[in-house]
Amino acid sequence: MFAEIITIGDELLIGQVTDTNSTWMGRELNKVGIEVIRVVSVRDRADEIIEAVDASMKRADIVLVTGGLGPTKDDITKQTLCKYFGTRLIFSEAVFENVKRVLAGKIPMNALNKSQAMVPEDCIVINNRVGSASVSWFEKDGKVLVSMPGVPQEMTTVMSEEVIPRLCAKFRTDAIVHRTFTVQNYPESVLAEKLESWEMALPACLKLAYLPKPGLIRLRLTGRGQNRSEVEACVNTESAKLEAILGEDILDEEDTPIEILIGELLKKKNLTLSTAESCTGGSIAARITSVAGSSEYFKGSIVAYANEVKTELLGVSMETLEKRGAVSEETVIEMVKGAMKALKTDCAVATSGIAGPSGGTEEKPVGTVWIAAAYKSEICTMKQETNRGREMNVERASNNALLLLRKLVK
Amino acid sequence: MFAEIITIGDELLIGQVTDTNSTWMGRELNKVGIEVIRVVSVRDRADEIIEAVDASMKRADIVLVTGGLGPTKDDITKQTLCKYFGTRLIFSEAVFENVKRVLAGKIPMNALNKSQAMVPEDCIVINNRVGSASVSWFEKDGKVLVSMPGVPQEMTTVMSEEVIPRLCAKFRTDAIVHRTFTVQNYPESVLAEKLESWEMALPACLKLAYLPKPGLIRLRLTGRGQNRSEVEACVNTESAKLEAILGEDILDEEDTPIEILIGELLKKKNLTLSTAESCTGGSIAARITSVAGSSEYFKGSIVAYANEVKTELLGVSMETLEKRGAVSEETVIEMVKGAMKALKTDCAVATSGIAGPSGGTEEKPVGTVWIAAAYKSEICTMKQETNRGREMNVERASNNALLLLRKLVK
Repeated sequence: MFAEIITIGDELLIGQVTDTNSTWMGRELNKVGIEVIRVVSVRDRADEIIEAVDASMKRADIVLVTGGLGPTKDDITKQTLCKYFGTRLIFSEAVFENVKRVLAGKIPMNALNKSQAMVPEDCIVINNRVGSASVSWFEKDGKVLVSMPGVPQEMTTVMSEEVIPRLCAKFRTDAIVHRTFTVQNYPESVLAEKLESWEMALPACLKLAYLPKPGLIRLRLTGRGQNRSEVEACVNTESAKLEAILGEDILDEEDTPIEILIGELLKKKNLTLSTAESCTGGSIAARITSVAGSSEYFKGSIVAYANEVKTELLGVSMETLEKRGAVSEETVIEMVKGAMKALKTDCAVATSGIAGPSGGTEEKPVGTVWIAAAYKSEICTMKQETNRGREMNVERASNNALLLLRKLVK
Repeated sequence: MFAEIITIGDELLIGQVTDTNSTWMGRELNKVGIEVIRVVSVRDRADEIIEAVDASMKRADIVLVTGGLGPTKDDITKQTLCKYFGTRLIFSEAVFENVKRVLAGKIPMNALNKSQAMVPEDCIVINNRVGSASVSWFEKDGKVLVSMPGVPQEMTTVMSEEVIPRLCAKFRTDAIVHRTFTVQNYPESVLAEKLESWEMALPACLKLAYLPKPGLIRLRLTGRGQNRSEVEACVNTESAKLEAILGEDILDEEDTPIEILIGELLKKKNLTLSTAESCTGGSIAARITSVAGSSEYFKGSIVAYANEVKTELLGVSMETLEKRGAVSEETVIEMVKGAMKALKTDCAVATSGIAGPSGGTEEKPVGTVWIAAAYKSEICTMKQETNRGREMNVERASNNALLLLRKLVK
């Protein structure tokens, strides 16, 4: 079963907003066996929307449209779809009640909000319980087009609660099974060479993809077919062969973010965590706390951007800072110890480096980051090198700190 | 001058990777007067790539293609473009030298890396100084197609240094002038009503767009025309009218991230900043330190996820925590004072709330966040309500904390 996604809005084309809706939709549709074969972003122009809709309706069974449903003049999706499907807008009492309910106590009702209760006559209107824009489900020649709001929280709610269940009920979908392996220690080309004969011999229902990430490569094995247990068996057989080839270089067999893996590990072992961050500036703490329930194991963090914070709150000695510098193995060791002591935790990670773009020296160029992880009395460190730009340097250091901790605690 | 972007890769369609390349490209092309009218993401399949390329070449003057240039078997963009343009791959000594240079000391050369030196015969090959995949510039019927690597850092480097300058040299482009206003205190529909008569009277060369953000609305006024100074004059005239209508509700006249505005303000006033974060878990510190040079004014942060960290490191009293609770105005006031004291700064912000999805009570439901900002002895607070999901609750709280501080210091 094939789907295409059309995201509508000038803001997507001029680079003011990144389209994260189609990422989420692609992932969720895939889980239920609906394969997204194309994503198209177009401007808020009727002729361009109609051309894109018409082309997608020809290629795919399901067309999912987001955006252009706001109350203002620049949003024209609803009228345009009416034109395409040869219908007109009519007032819906039920949608008007929902608009009133959603806006209640927040903003006064006016003519523009009222216009959100106008819906295409010839479609199934689906209620949007978290927003004022309604959802329209059109059918034509056995195909389905659903128009949804572009606000991510509204889209994900209506997709999860309404659209995906209805699509599953209407279409019989293939079983799709993914398995993702995170592999360390290999450049892409060397890994590909090592896996070549195995990959060439994969059965037709399986496909392999390489997804490089900073410092790692993810391998994604995808199987599809009508019978789920057959597809699963096939994926299992080939996964076992892959594991035999790569052994210890497989870091992880699922595509789970490292902050979630760390959380599970700490909960299982009943351990607590803190961070002491210089160049990562709170990014590691922010990632750890992005996981719901992280308060069970995460106690807090000291972001020590200034050297005096390193000495006063983390107990790094002046001597170390003077002799070795803030970006040194000795400093991150004292930082990680200081975090465990000040925040009374079993484990900690620490970072200190030169994120860039300036501040580098010949001995310690931009991109140099010292990282430490500690588990009770055990401490291990690593030095991250090569400059990939401020943002990427910080992201890699956060990744590496959590990977280092995982290796130590596991 | 119109451009379309085609991003290639299965990982984009199954939701494993978000396409941020087209966001960046849209923004940069816009600055030089090239308007992106469509973004299309397709799978690594020859027929689908060719169909998308052909359609884009018919609609646009410039087609920019990213992805599918890696050394592995699943990457087929180069061969597919050869087929479309009726040419073949030949070995390039110059590209091979670059591949060797880029990989030097990192990984051993093998047959797959060598294949990266194969380039389409009938195109201009542009060197990629930061990666091993080369860039191909095709011309056909006065139109241009450029194929670039999908790795963001490589794409942005070749676009900035090579592709955009060459496009500007080849095509005479319209002048495009954007002005973005960040407006507070208005729901979208009420603002639209207030601006209706002004918007209806805008000259044809100007266009207005509404871009809602958590807690704010951005208004983008875009002018385009052949004569830059005429377009600028037109944008200036209408901006002045808009300012007269909205007055103090315009928070900011540029679309600059709040963390940059705060940084400029603190530098100008020679002030230092720290944060005390509970529910935002280091996100505010991470945002502040995402700005290069933030070490000039940012000293550090105490992320106090556990209550004992609030008492021990920030000096929040046990009595306040017991009587008022961790999520209370009194607690964030003590936290913000504690941050200024412990980290010795002139200003600070503090947050404490229930990010969700669980942990709410009837009195303090999920989404409740208390925020404080302090500037020397002045402290102001606010309560953020309504639950928009964990991630959004944290993002809004970070925004609000920085906005509150800006209002206080300004």
